[in-house]
Amino acid sequence: MKFPRIYKLEEIAKMLQVEYVGQPEFPVKGMNEIHVVEDGDIVFVDHPKYYSKALDSAATIVLINKRVDCPEGKALLISDDPFRDFNALTTYFRPFQSASKSIMDTATIGKGTIIQPNVFVGNQVTIGENCLIHSNVAINNNCVIGNNVIIHSGTVLGGDAFYYSKRNGKWDKFLSGGRVIIEDDVEIGAGCTIDRGVTGDTTIREGSKLDNQIQVGHDTVIGKKCLIASQCGIAGCTVIEDEVTLWGQVGVISGITIGKGAVVHAQSGVSKSLPGGKTYFGSPAEEARKKMKELAAIKNMAENVKN
Amino acid sequence: MKFPRIYKLEEIAKMLQVEYVGQPEFPVKGMNEIHVVEDGDIVFVDHPKYYSKALDSAATIVLINKRVDCPEGKALLISDDPFRDFNALTTYFRPFQSASKSIMDTATIGKGTIIQPNVFVGNQVTIGENCLIHSNVAINNNCVIGNNVIIHSGTVLGGDAFYYSKRNGKWDKFLSGGRVIIEDDVEIGAGCTIDRGVTGDTTIREGSKLDNQIQVGHDTVIGKKCLIASQCGIAGCTVIEDEVTLWGQVGVISGITIGKGAVVHAQSGVSKSLPGGKTYFGSPAEEARKKMKELAAIKNMAENVKN
Amino acid sequence: MKFPRIYKLEEIAKMLQVEYVGQPEFPVKGMNEIHVVEDGDIVFVDHPKYYSKALDSAATIVLINKRVDCPEGKALLISDDPFRDFNALTTYFRPFQSASKSIMDTATIGKGTIIQPNVFVGNQVTIGENCLIHSNVAINNNCVIGNNVIIHSGTVLGGDAFYYSKRNGKWDKFLSGGRVIIEDDVEIGAGCTIDRGVTGDTTIREGSKLDNQIQVGHDTVIGKKCLIASQCGIAGCTVIEDEVTLWGQVGVISGITIGKGAVVHAQSGVSKSLPGGKTYFGSPAEEARKKMKELAAIKNMAENVKN
Repeated sequence: MKFPRIYKLEEIAKMLQVEYVGQPEFPVKGMNEIHVVEDGDIVFVDHPKYYSKALDSAATIVLINKRVDCPEGKALLISDDPFRDFNALTTYFRPFQSASKSIMDTATIGKGTIIQPNVFVGNQVTIGENCLIHSNVAINNNCVIGNNVIIHSGTVLGGDAFYYSKRNGKWDKFLSGGRVIIEDDVEIGAGCTIDRGVTGDTTIREGSKLDNQIQVGHDTVIGKKCLIASQCGIAGCTVIEDEVTLWGQVGVISGITIGKGAVVHAQSGVSKSLPGGKTYFGSPAEEARKKMKELAAIKNMAENVKN
Repeated sequence: MKFPRIYKLEEIAKMLQVEYVGQPEFPVKGMNEIHVVEDGDIVFVDHPKYYSKALDSAATIVLINKRVDCPEGKALLISDDPFRDFNALTTYFRPFQSASKSIMDTATIGKGTIIQPNVFVGNQVTIGENCLIHSNVAINNNCVIGNNVIIHSGTVLGGDAFYYSKRNGKWDKFLSGGRVIIEDDVEIGAGCTIDRGVTGDTTIREGSKLDNQIQVGHDTVIGKKCLIASQCGIAGCTVIEDEVTLWGQVGVISGITIGKGAVVHAQSGVSKSLPGGKTYFGSPAEEARKKMKELAAIKNMAENVKN
Repeated sequence: MKFPRIYKLEEIAKMLQVEYVGQPEFPVKGMNEIHVVEDGDIVFVDHPKYYSKALDSAATIVLINKRVDCPEGKALLISDDPFRDFNALTTYFRPFQSASKSIMDTATIGKGTIIQPNVFVGNQVTIGENCLIHSNVAINNNCVIGNNVIIHSGTVLGGDAFYYSKRNGKWDKFLSGGRVIIEDDVEIGAGCTIDRGVTGDTTIREGSKLDNQIQVGHDTVIGKKCLIASQCGIAGCTVIEDEVTLWGQVGVISGITIGKGAVVHAQSGVSKSLPGGKTYFGSPAEEARKKMKELAAIKNMAENVKN
């Protein structure tokens, strides 16, 4: 998430009421989670185990709970609770705004776009031209939809990430300030749920087609011209490259990449990154050819068991 | 899909601006996909590989991209793009009509039927008597619902088929002009999605009961008095015969038949037609007895592996 | 389900127009299904196979279709159709009440709670303080929600149980008169469906977090501080104890218990009760360690098969 302008380190420190290490004027452009940080971003870390990962990341400002040595060309924000303060930044820069009616005035809706009855379009939503948003769809705050997009009834864009941290014996929520981006010519079936990014964006690229009841987790990217069949579940922070086909009820865990043009058979469970251009099957998923050989071997073995 | 009246071949040819082979007065009664065509129907074909299948089908009018020999008693419509022109016919005979309010005036709702708040009832929808349509349901254009039907909150009837053709490197949508037919005494749980047929109907027959979050694809038929448990996904063009039981999270691929009275255990994946009257399990699904034997053989083998 | 006051046996008998065995003044406090009955409850039984189970249960009033010996300290209601009459009691004490608008006046909504557009809040619903109910949620009659609860778009609370009895060749519906109880600090994702209890309550205890598209069946209890990932399906009458983690697309059958702190890997199918504190995998689910050994043995066997 980029901030609306470049802030000075001392401004952010004052906002959070924390001390800092670095030049007061040090530029702060945004905030992000460790896996998507860029130059100018704040990242947070609250466990010594991850200190060096955060300090060595592309982020140039580290919100941390110990006064460590500050790497060259970077800055520190010293907090007794980086998790709480990172959430505070999200609340400051992307506060949840409730809605007083079904289509908010702060939404921008392009020419030729049809919005059917009982649709919710939240604050600062952008919808392009010639889209068709079917009845009972919910498009939550800050979602961005391109041109020629079709979204079927009951689908929800921009729910919060399923992301908690166990603190003091309970699950504390990591607030979601990211967005959902649906590019041109995408079609999304009925009853899908596409979560917003935590600090980044959940993105479905141009020309991809999703069937009904598909789950897409926070910060996940689905490439161009993919086909995703009904009831697939794709966890957060995953990359599905272009022209991938997932058949029905496939599950994909978080943080992995499925390579360009891969095909995954129905009900498979993808538990690790898969190279593109191949066909996969099984739970856990493996190359289909190999999996089929296993199934044949099992069948053969069972037939040879004495009864 | 039957047309509202019988058309003459020359009328259709003029509408599509294409040439034709056959008598100008040759009767055209409707249009259908190859797997559901009947006498009087237009079918389309655009690949030489499938020419003879289309020409030999029950359809009496073939929308085709080559001037081939016309079979006896049939007619041809010669198009440079049969896919585009078939879609043009769907748009002509079953155009998408947007809705100006939640319950359209063109809908017919029977005596004693209760429609709860936030329900969408689209154009030309028919709902019978003594139904209960719970809140936040979406019943899209042209759906037909019988008597004594209960539909729970959040369910969507009549989303489009998930049906595309790769043309010029992108996924072109095959338009859906078919309907959803829900017969008497059916109950459908919350959060289900039942797609409309492409040219035919998606049908759920009398007395069947569906649990929550079930997906039913286009042109599929679910027989009488079936029980389908939560989160099952049934692809398009499939036939589930009468009195079939599918337990939770079962997946069924397209184009197959599950025979009368079959029982499929939870999480199974049905990848081929299954004879009725038996019990199945596994992904891919096999007779449960056989599958259980395989599981026992695997367990036995693993226990005998040296550690 | 407790009745609004203590009834006399003869009052109930008169209401149902059935005969009774016992003191006319015998106290009747409520009604429940066999698995949740308490002292003062009516239970029903209509098959000789289950007579002794019903007569020996904690229920003190048995609605039965034969004049059997009445156990000491209990009473009988003699009906020619106990199923029909049990449904009649549900209809009497918890009738379905239709709604005239999206937020019913009989609902109680606490201070600081935000209800977004297109939400349905049914009759006699209670929502606590500082909750956030996102757009297009359906909260059906009699649901009870605590404080600081977040419910995401499209979720449905209080659909009916998926519960039928085959009578005269068709599926007769067992009416649902129970409730959904969501305790404090629970978060429920988008597109979930949580069914009401049949006579008891479906309960999600304090601090549990549910992701999107989760199904929770009737009368199921989810303990405190559980994490349930997307697309899990939990059948009815099941107990998930505190601090259980279910990863994505797990299925859990009805009537079992998953013990405290258990972790179940993605896509597993839980078909029997599982002791707490351990990690499970597979369909059917077993201890993950054991299952991994099986997978390794299969792989090894397949590699040794001659090609």
